[in-house]
Amino acid sequence: MESNSSKQEKVLSENGKAEITASESSKDGSICGFESLHRLLEASLSPLIFQEVSRLLIGLNCGRPLGTISLSDSSKALSSKHDFDLQAYSFCADKESLRAPRIVRAGLIQNSIALPTTESFFDQKKAIFQKVAPIIEAAGASGVNILCLQEAWMMPFAFCTREKRWCEFAEPVDGESTQFLQEFAKKYNMVIVNPILERDIKHGETLWNTAVIIGNHGNIIGKHRKNHIPRVGDFNESTYYMEGNTGHPVFETAFGRIGINICYGRHHPLNWLAFGLNGAEIVFNPSATVGELSEPMWPIEARNAAIANSYFVGSINRVGTEVFPNPFTSGNGKPPHADFGHFYGSSHFSAPDASCTPSLSRHKDGLMISDMDLNLCRQLKDKWGFRMTARYDMYADLLARYVKPDFEPQVISDPLLHKNTA
Amino acid sequence: MESNSSKQEKVLSENGKAEITASESSKDGSICGFESLHRLLEASLSPLIFQEVSRLLIGLNCGRPLGTISLSDSSKALSSKHDFDLQAYSFCADKESLRAPRIVRAGLIQNSIALPTTESFFDQKKAIFQKVAPIIEAAGASGVNILCLQEAWMMPFAFCTREKRWCEFAEPVDGESTQFLQEFAKKYNMVIVNPILERDIKHGETLWNTAVIIGNHGNIIGKHRKNHIPRVGDFNESTYYMEGNTGHPVFETAFGRIGINICYGRHHPLNWLAFGLNGAEIVFNPSATVGELSEPMWPIEARNAAIANSYFVGSINRVGTEVFPNPFTSGNGKPPHADFGHFYGSSHFSAPDASCTPSLSRHKDGLMISDMDLNLCRQLKDKWGFRMTARYDMYADLLARYVKPDFEPQVISDPLLHKNTA
Repeated sequence: MESNSSKQEKVLSENGKAEITASESSKDGSICGFESLHRLLEASLSPLIFQEVSRLLIGLNCGRPLGTISLSDSSKALSSKHDFDLQAYSFCADKESLRAPRIVRAGLIQNSIALPTTESFFDQKKAIFQKVAPIIEAAGASGVNILCLQEAWMMPFAFCTREKRWCEFAEPVDGESTQFLQEFAKKYNMVIVNPILERDIKHGETLWNTAVIIGNHGNIIGKHRKNHIPRVGDFNESTYYMEGNTGHPVFETAFGRIGINICYGRHHPLNWLAFGLNGAEIVFNPSATVGELSEPMWPIEARNAAIANSYFVGSINRVGTEVFPNPFTSGNGKPPHADFGHFYGSSHFSAPDASCTPSLSRHKDGLMISDMDLNLCRQLKDKWGFRMTARYDMYADLLARYVKPDFEPQVISDPLLHKNTA
Repeated sequence: MESNSSKQEKVLSENGKAEITASESSKDGSICGFESLHRLLEASLSPLIFQEVSRLLIGLNCGRPLGTISLSDSSKALSSKHDFDLQAYSFCADKESLRAPRIVRAGLIQNSIALPTTESFFDQKKAIFQKVAPIIEAAGASGVNILCLQEAWMMPFAFCTREKRWCEFAEPVDGESTQFLQEFAKKYNMVIVNPILERDIKHGETLWNTAVIIGNHGNIIGKHRKNHIPRVGDFNESTYYMEGNTGHPVFETAFGRIGINICYGRHHPLNWLAFGLNGAEIVFNPSATVGELSEPMWPIEARNAAIANSYFVGSINRVGTEVFPNPFTSGNGKPPHADFGHFYGSSHFSAPDASCTPSLSRHKDGLMISDMDLNLCRQLKDKWGFRMTARYDMYADLLARYVKPDFEPQVISDPLLHKNTA
């Protein structure tokens, strides 16, 4: 699934369709070097067809294709110098008579690790900080109000190895990653969401998968711990930490009410729902997930959450392939191997009106910026009425019955069922 | 949004990309005559790019593109004679050691109305029966085990008019539509889901939006009434019927356990969840929805439900534009008009492994057939563990609190919030 080439050069074959160059085609005949579905389609389709495909695939916002934002030269220079993907879009909302627009500029950072996993942990972490710093600077220089980094951004995603030595990367909520980001928060008047592997000193050195919310004055507003822990493929993360105990807090920041649904929690509609019930306007989903496992699901779950809960979603996935020192098996009968697969990036925003931005690169570090008028959340609630028509009482009752060991499902059997096999 | 042309002829423009012919391009420059996104992309992209786009857009099943089924000549002849789209696919599952495969052939029918809405109600209904009969015959001749028709298939979707006279179309559960379909159920040993406008005689002639489940011996197994009623755009259906009182029954049929999530219920993740908790293996979503309102959401919500709940989903939408005798307004300040917009068809199946079939035509009647090994449902539960990791107790508690009038959301405010505006 992995390729080092990110070239998008196309040649036209005899039948006139855009073709993939040899550098993008892997040995098994699949193509893997393309940057994003959006760019692949844009390069391959006529403008008229691309417009219609986009209407279906990424929707319209206020009846139009999504707007773009022109960023400062300094942001573009950073993107060019440090070779990270930089994209910026704008979600609008209808003009209201009694409320002014509430436009927030949000940012998502995706990155690969910086040094081989065989280097010292100290050097690895320092190198990631150095690598991510210019991307954060670009966010700050672009006027981003709320920035979210990827899940456990300060370390390789070593949980596939089941080796406990990677626990050393864990930090307290006010540890070095938070301190590092607090400086940027103050410098740029920017809320920053800092997803880390947390070490809870006050509770016997327990580990958690945690997002620390840093306010725009550099203060720590609070933390949220990942609610749902995967046991799928190599993502046996329960080796390292347990289900979070912080509920579904929504953080009221200077720029809007935000929630954090960490990684695997995106597969749970109830988790998304709970942040919505608590009033979130933007929910970030810092993740780490690989192509073969989840790539077709990636945009579906995020966009569904935005639609169903009438809020914006910011989805972040790390990029690249991380190779670990000791080969490990994956419980699939295949030989031991040393990597997790390809983290496919593709960070993007989804809106409550079913529109979404294109995705960042599947291969490169990146910064996705989007303006969003938070008024759109309530406008969609008023339009579709999902909250009003949700009949929560029915589901509160069902779940209360379901969690009991003697739950009996509501099943109506065909009384003639056994005639069929007679 | 509507076009009578369904031609897909392409010409190649100078830059070598497939272009839309004039007949597919409407006055506003948008294209609308294309049959489906899948076919549009297939006709426009090189095979290699199309393969990769398909991997992302419709996923892989058992690591491969979805298989197709070869149908009987009599089915194909019916499709050709009566000009309806006929497509057939096959979802596989892994071979198990202790369970035989449980392969079910399911079918979805989408159709436009048959006569102008100015004709007598008696003639309109009779004409729809006559129009749909050969499509049902094709399903029977193709060996379909479980067939589902579209929402309120036996009438025009007149609820936009807010005129009460259309209530005449309502029938009791054992009324003429059910009787009509019972004959096919017996003839073809086929379970048939019959979504009607129901008149509940025993409860004072109350109307409901109901699906009647007919067993493969022609018996009535039971009914389900639409749980969530829209008040969006012209879909002010609460003018005609109220929220259903039948819970979330799962019907144990000769061919599998099925649930029915009627139309607007697809926007409610809790509704999908409830059918899953009650043990559904296939959930049908008979719908009636128009392009401008929902087309970009259509595949997202269905596929998300299939993924999140580890079951198959069969989505059905009617086709065509229905013009009503008396113009009506839509609460959007625009002049009165006589139609609802274009019902875009696009019926399809989604699987729990995130794969899905292409969609039926956006313009023509159609029959979508799919084989599905129901073993895939449990295999996905075992692989991803969504039920195991769902923490339902936490959500039972949240919903129990939420439904109380004095509910307080879990909000953590930045204590420095007011410094920002100072």
